[in-house]
Amino acid sequence: ETTVEAKVFADGHDAVEARLQYRKTDAGKWSEAPMQPLGNDSWRSSFTPDTPGDWEFRIEAWIDHFGSWVKGLHKRSEAGAVTEIDMAIGAQLVSLAAKRSKGKKATSLAAEAEKLADEGTSLGYRVELALSIGLSESMSDLADRSLSTISDVFAVVADRRQAVFSSWYEFFPRSLGEVGEHGTFADVEAHLDYVAAMGFDVVYLPPIHPIGNAHRKGPNNTLHAGPDDPGVPWAIGSQQGGHDSIHPDLGSMEDFRSMVRAGAERGLEFALDVAFQASPDHPWVEEHPEWFKSRPDGTIQYAENPPKKYQDIYPIDFETSDPDGLWKGLKSVFDFWIDEGVEIFRVDNPHTKSFPFWEWLITEIRAAHPGVVFLAEAFTRPAVMHRLAKVGFNQSYTYFAWRNTRHELVEYMQDLHEVADFFRPNFWPNTPDILTEYLQTGTRAAFISRLVLASTLSASYGIYGPAYELMEHRPIRPGAEEYVDSEKYQIRDWDLDRADSLAPLITQVNRARREHPALQRNHNLHFHDVDNEMILCYSKRHGPDVVLIIVNLDPHHTQSGWTSLDLDALGLEGVGQFQMHDLLTERRYVWGGSRNFVRLDVEGVPAHVFHVRSPSRSERDFDYFN
Amino acid sequence: ETTVEAKVFADGHDAVEARLQYRKTDAGKWSEAPMQPLGNDSWRSSFTPDTPGDWEFRIEAWIDHFGSWVKGLHKRSEAGAVTEIDMAIGAQLVSLAAKRSKGKKATSLAAEAEKLADEGTSLGYRVELALSIGLSESMSDLADRSLSTISDVFAVVADRRQAVFSSWYEFFPRSLGEVGEHGTFADVEAHLDYVAAMGFDVVYLPPIHPIGNAHRKGPNNTLHAGPDDPGVPWAIGSQQGGHDSIHPDLGSMEDFRSMVRAGAERGLEFALDVAFQASPDHPWVEEHPEWFKSRPDGTIQYAENPPKKYQDIYPIDFETSDPDGLWKGLKSVFDFWIDEGVEIFRVDNPHTKSFPFWEWLITEIRAAHPGVVFLAEAFTRPAVMHRLAKVGFNQSYTYFAWRNTRHELVEYMQDLHEVADFFRPNFWPNTPDILTEYLQTGTRAAFISRLVLASTLSASYGIYGPAYELMEHRPIRPGAEEYVDSEKYQIRDWDLDRADSLAPLITQVNRARREHPALQRNHNLHFHDVDNEMILCYSKRHGPDVVLIIVNLDPHHTQSGWTSLDLDALGLEGVGQFQMHDLLTERRYVWGGSRNFVRLDVEGVPAHVFHVRSPSRSERDFDYFN
Repeated sequence: ETTVEAKVFADGHDAVEARLQYRKTDAGKWSEAPMQPLGNDSWRSSFTPDTPGDWEFRIEAWIDHFGSWVKGLHKRSEAGAVTEIDMAIGAQLVSLAAKRSKGKKATSLAAEAEKLADEGTSLGYRVELALSIGLSESMSDLADRSLSTISDVFAVVADRRQAVFSSWYEFFPRSLGEVGEHGTFADVEAHLDYVAAMGFDVVYLPPIHPIGNAHRKGPNNTLHAGPDDPGVPWAIGSQQGGHDSIHPDLGSMEDFRSMVRAGAERGLEFALDVAFQASPDHPWVEEHPEWFKSRPDGTIQYAENPPKKYQDIYPIDFETSDPDGLWKGLKSVFDFWIDEGVEIFRVDNPHTKSFPFWEWLITEIRAAHPGVVFLAEAFTRPAVMHRLAKVGFNQSYTYFAWRNTRHELVEYMQDLHEVADFFRPNFWPNTPDILTEYLQTGTRAAFISRLVLASTLSASYGIYGPAYELMEHRPIRPGAEEYVDSEKYQIRDWDLDRADSLAPLITQVNRARREHPALQRNHNLHFHDVDNEMILCYSKRHGPDVVLIIVNLDPHHTQSGWTSLDLDALGLEGVGQFQMHDLLTERRYVWGGSRNFVRLDVEGVPAHVFHVRSPSRSERDFDYFN
Repeated sequence: ETTVEAKVFADGHDAVEARLQYRKTDAGKWSEAPMQPLGNDSWRSSFTPDTPGDWEFRIEAWIDHFGSWVKGLHKRSEAGAVTEIDMAIGAQLVSLAAKRSKGKKATSLAAEAEKLADEGTSLGYRVELALSIGLSESMSDLADRSLSTISDVFAVVADRRQAVFSSWYEFFPRSLGEVGEHGTFADVEAHLDYVAAMGFDVVYLPPIHPIGNAHRKGPNNTLHAGPDDPGVPWAIGSQQGGHDSIHPDLGSMEDFRSMVRAGAERGLEFALDVAFQASPDHPWVEEHPEWFKSRPDGTIQYAENPPKKYQDIYPIDFETSDPDGLWKGLKSVFDFWIDEGVEIFRVDNPHTKSFPFWEWLITEIRAAHPGVVFLAEAFTRPAVMHRLAKVGFNQSYTYFAWRNTRHELVEYMQDLHEVADFFRPNFWPNTPDILTEYLQTGTRAAFISRLVLASTLSASYGIYGPAYELMEHRPIRPGAEEYVDSEKYQIRDWDLDRADSLAPLITQVNRARREHPALQRNHNLHFHDVDNEMILCYSKRHGPDVVLIIVNLDPHHTQSGWTSLDLDALGLEGVGQFQMHDLLTERRYVWGGSRNFVRLDVEGVPAHVFHVRSPSRSERDFDYFN
């Protein structure tokens, strides 16, 4: 639902009337909804775009001559000062409306006009007729809009539900094979039940394309790969193909299609990674050398961040002499995978590519496929991240991973709230590139807290597994934020059956998210105070659904404290006792008032995700909660 | 000076450069000013429109390839990793700039390019050359802007100084005659020295046109006028003429011109009152009956606010069948008086006329006469008052007259601050229509307080005299806000020589306003706390000029209290003692720190307008203040 508020007013003292008009962009006739006055010239209405795509709305307003006359007549009638001229003016307005109308309506209005002006009947009767609701409604529908004012047209992008509410699970298919073997799409297919059981809905795979051989990196980002090292999936392209090819070790296009179908059967959508860069072996380098920047010696400019050099990656040069060919060539990558049934893309480093390119690309693709979702993998300055959202990215990675203290989290959520109308966050506590210092503590509590925060602070979240559920936490070296033995550079073997896996807890978290609409949106976050800085407490509310989350931010120690709940925000004004149903542990507590004691055990589950159940209004006994 | 801030950023990590471009609207070539980065992608610059009228600005930004190269070279140089290819890339950039250049510049840049690439000289020398400021400046001026981004064009309306800073004095010329006689323009001319001595710069006259006879009002708004009653100046038009005619009792057009000239000699500008409405005798009624609304019985609709009726006034009907004729006819009124040298207009009730009409009218008039100032006499809802400012009114009446308590005044000033970029207030403590309850207390303190508030809270203010300086305060009846024996309906005889006249104090106030730039603007108001709710304390600062105003809001009692000055806002951080020079009484006080005692005597001058003098930085002794 899109709510629209506007200042609507006219010169003078006449009554005004306003309607909200909306439609799919350029789709012919406008639908119309009346606007309600809120006082101080503000008016409000709303509409619900019922399909994804571009919508637009505008406001039409006009002076309500009949309404103004009714208002005046009402005052005159109370002062006993109604004259025949007054009635004649009203009759004239009704008669004009009759002429703008047709058929029965015209006849009946013409008759009403005559009655209003009929000096043969009593003034009192005629005033009553004039003030009747039925006549006002007819007159409102037939208002003379020839001098109406129509506002500018405003655009609204309506996305499908997954653009705001989605649970992502990322993993490397190549690690799913038998020990010593390269995993395949068939292995992914076999793995889907595991992912679906945890309650995710998006399966995100790192690039599935052939990997370059030139300057290939070895394990732990070493400069020279051995003959069996698989390389980095983001070093895209080799003699075996580029962005529209599949790494031969993963399988065939038919295997890919089978895997996508298998996902769909389990309610899982595949998200592909689009990284517009090329290994020196990528077919584009030979076919389109002008898409890359050449140096004075004729060689191609590799990526660098002086003095670091990345000879295995050629960035695209958007100042190319062939912008048309480049833009179309890049778009063909999306088109190719969309044709194969992929509708979600995680775009690698979009902020290092041209904004006008993204705006064009996303507009073009949306026009044909309004359901396509783009996640921006951009970690950069706020203005740039916001710009990407404005050019069309539906979701964005964020700085959540590095916001750990209560102050940092509250401040960051406030920053996000300010841009929530166009910028949708996707919270990742880890990625193959990010193993934060906080997770490096390695405690189970750390992994649980960050999971609960990500999945309840943001309507969209994701984890990189199985590293996450198996609490992988060893960095490549002290002080670094990268994994040791990272799957980016080598194949790993994960023991998914480990007794301490967080998979059961993740299942609980995702179930809570599915069952509670309050957790499926971003505009409804409210913080509550707790008298212990190490505890974060917040709620989300949507209609009758209220969820209160309390998280121990200390990965090492049990913390306890007293809440100061904002009962208004929880819909609990004047409610004596209420039940707190912990969706992670299924335990229930009876709380009362604003102050309640919480203790978050670092050895157990150091977080509550409470469904707040206020007593039924029609309660028979005090134990019954909604 | 207009300050412009913008977010300027590009994809990727390259350096960007931005320039602010500005010009008189559509006046050919853009002038250009460099923008300075403020951090977090914000950039700032400013320009000063040097003549009144419509100006516009935009921002051009581009990727600074040479700057990016210099940045990278600097890093590489520090890492000892500069290669010949690096130098060749820089040489190529300089060589391309040489080709975009001409004459000597081209030759010298080509030579620098050769030097950069000359492997025969040391790398160190060439790196030094590359990092030199001279080369960077030349390269910046010759930047390749072929792929630059240019922002939207934004409009700025530049008004002449009087649009923001003006001191108005309103009076009825007809009251200036010998007792029993109708005052004339010649009497006004003789009166100008009195007005100029008080320090005003705008003389505002109520309508000077023939007054209608039909339904003429008598003294104290009685329904029937006697044969000698002069009528209401706002009931415009009779057989003797309409909006472009002069009331015969005031004088001739030649008298009018003489009066305007006499004003100019004294630094006084005349402001005329434009009230677009007609007495039933107005020539328009016969010549253009379609400009008025007719009722079903063929008569013309008079003004009313049910059940009140104003048969002496016909409102203009902007839904006329002749909008073109009406708009041009009304504009001809302004054109007529502009041709007679009038450049300031007080427009009566503009909010009851069509907004598009005003927008057209003001745009048209401004195009020919950019110095014309329009004051909107609108007391209505905020959205409507703001709209009038946006369609072009330079100043507006406000609700100041009814804001009396400290809370009311602070809140109202905050409201005005929010719209200060387009809405300029003109504060009137009284008008011929407004005698507030506060002034009806009749105390000298009440009149002084409201005078000081109006003239120092707002850069533009006005009073209706001699009623104000003679403290006229009797209402027509208890509870009413209108004057008894109002000059609207009758000629009054004022004793300007009364010993208790506020004229000397008004002179002091206007002198303070003229001498202190801080009082001549609206964006610079800052409130300070005082531990007595009856005392209002605020400051205005512009450059080195700082004025602190303290007003007793209680019209009946002396009040005292301790200030909590915000020393930062006063530019007094770290200053021990400072001198407070009271511009109303010429008394001087030495204050120190934030807490100072004030006592505002209800029998004397219950307000301070302090010029704040901090000690000279080059002081010889502690008694010397700037």
